[in-house]
Amino acid sequence: MFSADQLKYDEHGLLGAIIQDYKTNEVLMFAFMNKEAVERTLKGPYVTFWSRSRQKYWVKGEESGHTQEVKEVFYDCDGDALLIKVDQKVAACHEGYRSCFFRKIEGSTGSFGDKVIAERMFDPKQAYKK
Amino acid sequence: MFSADQLKYDEHGLLGAIIQDYKTNEVLMFAFMNKEAVERTLKGPYVTFWSRSRQKYWVKGEESGHTQEVKEVFYDCDGDALLIKVDQKVAACHEGYRSCFFRKIEGSTGSFGDKVIAERMFDPKQAYKK
Repeated sequence: MFSADQLKYDEHGLLGAIIQDYKTNEVLMFAFMNKEAVERTLKGPYVTFWSRSRQKYWVKGEESGHTQEVKEVFYDCDGDALLIKVDQKVAACHEGYRSCFFRKIEGSTGSFGDKVIAERMFDPKQAYKK
Repeated sequence: MFSADQLKYDEHGLLGAIIQDYKTNEVLMFAFMNKEAVERTLKGPYVTFWSRSRQKYWVKGEESGHTQEVKEVFYDCDGDALLIKVDQKVAACHEGYRSCFFRKIEGSTGSFGDKVIAERMFDPKQAYKK
């Protein structure tokens, strides 16, 4: 038997969840879940987070349609992080990119720059009309 | 210019770092960094974390030899998580598995189980002699 009670949550009742494309293994985003969000995600079909800023459950894609259908769920050796493989509709990032990790840090000892390494897949102004 | 000051750290001065195999895109582990650990990691050659349990810098592999050579570093749209692609020596997990995410949660509505889905790559008792 597995229960979401087995996992370790921080002092805010949260743990981190890494979201990965189930086909390409691209890491799409990182966000937090409380125990109830873990349970909702395990039941599926879509990934549910706990939004720290809005203090509410957040079914990813509920507004934009860019849902994450749960394919596989793993937890780590310390029981304080989840890895969730998903079928991502369109793109994960609210800025329009497939992955939230679209900025790469470059450089060598002492001096670094960063650059956008992906193309936008949608216009955020169209997807989020509020 | 990029500076580790641009990133957002939590109330403990930490942010999460996802470690990914630079060749296969397998997610290997998740751990925390403070600003100094981010700077040390950017300078390379190896990934350095901040150990919350030991309250010290932790060059992954310093004891076991299972180092993580930094290949690429990305930060996310919120600036509160890093994705680091590495050349992982042997295995990332202190339990002997390539990835710390070696337990899969399975099941359907209401009832779940979990199982180990990987083979050990080393004997933890040999690698960590203390």
